[in-house]
Amino acid sequence: MGKVYLVGAGPGAPDLLTLRAAKLLARADIVFFDALVHPETLALATRARLVDVGKRNGRLSTEQRFTNRALVEAARTHETVVRLKGGDPMLFGRAQEELDALHAAGVEVEVVPGITAALAASASLGISLTRRGLSRHVAFVTPRTGVDQSPTEWLAAASSADTIALYMAAAQAKQVATDLIAAGRPGATPAVFIENASLPNERRVVTTLADLRSGPVPAFEGPALLLVGEVFRELSLGAMEHEAEVRLAITERCQARSA
Amino acid sequence: MGKVYLVGAGPGAPDLLTLRAAKLLARADIVFFDALVHPETLALATRARLVDVGKRNGRLSTEQRFTNRALVEAARTHETVVRLKGGDPMLFGRAQEELDALHAAGVEVEVVPGITAALAASASLGISLTRRGLSRHVAFVTPRTGVDQSPTEWLAAASSADTIALYMAAAQAKQVATDLIAAGRPGATPAVFIENASLPNERRVVTTLADLRSGPVPAFEGPALLLVGEVFRELSLGAMEHEAEVRLAITERCQARSA
Repeated sequence: MGKVYLVGAGPGAPDLLTLRAAKLLARADIVFFDALVHPETLALATRARLVDVGKRNGRLSTEQRFTNRALVEAARTHETVVRLKGGDPMLFGRAQEELDALHAAGVEVEVVPGITAALAASASLGISLTRRGLSRHVAFVTPRTGVDQSPTEWLAAASSADTIALYMAAAQAKQVATDLIAAGRPGATPAVFIENASLPNERRVVTTLADLRSGPVPAFEGPALLLVGEVFRELSLGAMEHEAEVRLAITERCQARSA
Repeated sequence: MGKVYLVGAGPGAPDLLTLRAAKLLARADIVFFDALVHPETLALATRARLVDVGKRNGRLSTEQRFTNRALVEAARTHETVVRLKGGDPMLFGRAQEELDALHAAGVEVEVVPGITAALAASASLGISLTRRGLSRHVAFVTPRTGVDQSPTEWLAAASSADTIALYMAAAQAKQVATDLIAAGRPGATPAVFIENASLPNERRVVTTLADLRSGPVPAFEGPALLLVGEVFRELSLGAMEHEAEVRLAITERCQARSA
């Protein structure tokens, strides 16, 4: 009987993997991976058979059951089984369902943590989620609702936190802004979308709760993180400065051309 | 002018460092490190001068100012300056003060995220902080109060969250339990202290809010994390089972001796 390692692949950039995860991949016999894991990370698993168990929209629970079963079966025939999950397995990673299935089947399992998206985004923005005198607590929530869940279930936990990290939030962003303002957050509170944090194609949209409530919501291809809180105010100033710089650069280029 | 990297050293185990951090340490000219960074992590900085800026109780702000100034000065005379912080720099890491000082001095700075203690603890316990149908949000708070802060300032953010990760919580644990029960949390809610998560000397104490309120608080040498929430219930059952097993083993050993 082999052992299963539930491993956090980190936020996206392959060098934000942990040393322990890299070592495990190098000796893995089989690796089950999600859609969001970087090809360079998978390339570290030189000996392993690679199995894509990335979840597709609308077929979540069937595929989760399939993954649970596949992990148990793999442990019967392989020594080192790695289940590679984007970010950290234990925060919005649905690790518990796989852990429970493995425990129930008597399979030994170990969890290796990974860098979660919100911390990668914070690093990339250069803005600390906590800050003396301004932010002393952070809520990690998702507005994505399950069948048994009220649409504003996340709000109680989020509304009192200084900084809010909303995972998988893009689709519900307008409602999130409306709910947070209704719960007492000022409309001027900065809000930042980040897609592909830590990767070269990282994309940021800096806005405010009021603009998000009344304006258009940016479209994202993958899962986007939404960060909300006063700590991001300098970023919105920075974004405006950056925009002014870009405009100036364009003006200068046009002048140079016409000269 | 050099560049400063604010690097998360992770929760303690040297192999929970990221690949990026390891590479930066290998080429660092000077490394400023905290008291909690593992010697094996520091050993990766083969070329660098090592400067201990670990904070001692009661001399926080003076030393922070010293560190800020030392980082700026180091950037003037070294190409690659690494500021190594336990856990993640952006979550209770006071990174913003160093970022602000470096920005003000015109020093280029980049943040490298690290595994934060709560995620390492969750991995080590094998209990996911979020769990379908049971926990959909996590609050990261500290009950440690600043001069400008009410002693229950953290409570509003924490009390509505399904799972609560309290950093630097051991000293205030009794008050934390009292406040959470007063805010409506059942006394039977599981609470777990974890010290040195991910290290061989990791220590866990599984209890409940009610027992924590009325009983003795365990003593810890270093900073301990306190995790609170229903997701940890299976752990308290596990702890009881483990205790029963230990008792059985002792009984059997005694019987074997007397036989």
